[in-house]
Amino acid sequence: MSNCTLCQTTGGQLLWENDLLRIIDAQDPQYPGFTRVIWKAHVAEMTDLLPAYQLMLMQNVLKIEMIQRDILQPDKINLAAFGNMVPHLHWHIIPRWRDDPHFPQPVWAAQPQADDHARDRQALRLQAIQARIPAYHAAIHSMMP
Amino acid sequence: MSNCTLCQTTGGQLLWENDLLRIIDAQDPQYPGFTRVIWKAHVAEMTDLLPAYQLMLMQNVLKIEMIQRDILQPDKINLAAFGNMVPHLHWHIIPRWRDDPHFPQPVWAAQPQADDHARDRQALRLQAIQARIPAYHAAIHSMMP
Repeated sequence: MSNCTLCQTTGGQLLWENDLLRIIDAQDPQYPGFTRVIWKAHVAEMTDLLPAYQLMLMQNVLKIEMIQRDILQPDKINLAAFGNMVPHLHWHIIPRWRDDPHFPQPVWAAQPQADDHARDRQALRLQAIQARIPAYHAAIHSMMP
Repeated sequence: MSNCTLCQTTGGQLLWENDLLRIIDAQDPQYPGFTRVIWKAHVAEMTDLLPAYQLMLMQNVLKIEMIQRDILQPDKINLAAFGNMVPHLHWHIIPRWRDDPHFPQPVWAAQPQADDHARDRQALRLQAIQARIPAYHAAIHSMMP
């Protein structure tokens, strides 16, 4: 569709694709490793897909979850498909840490004020995750079929 | 686990259950129809489940999505599994409307100020959805295997 961002652009740094879906790094400065699996066809809901495609899409989402767990070792994984802004089916896979800026809220919540101590800890955490991103991307390149 | 809310309580109004999962109405006053599918065993992530159980869980999540579309006819469905607060696997299935209090943000975002006109429209919308909730619950009771 000509007015849909996810039809017109990749929507991030392309990590992997096949004919039906693509996997991108969302390049979120606060959340390194924030990844999206985007269904290529312009459909709004999971239940717009045939069951075999729903399964294929979720298998890829969960493959990303597994790679995040293996390489980034977050405290929690967050999965979400909203599509309120862009009604084009895409999944968010977000590695979360207990000391990240929004925890335990979703990353879309208002960001709580952080004191100096929390900000320092977050900066250290960010550095540590950033250092693992090349290995994370390499794992996605090599572990996908 | 003795300190986990979702191990100790149903977590909402029970609509359906089998040995492995239960489906509850979250009874959110702003979001009638907000439903959760809760895996009964205390596991944190989708990838803690065997693939057959991942599939069964998602099939139930998407069955709820389909029933929401059929009966509640929302503008969008939101799906999410966070588990930041309660690291016990559960899915949120939320019917959304373009004139609901958070749209197009996720329901966890800060709620924007609504003017009188928007508040009136939201109140009317809420009434209209509430009126469909008995049919929605009945469909979940009858359409699940």
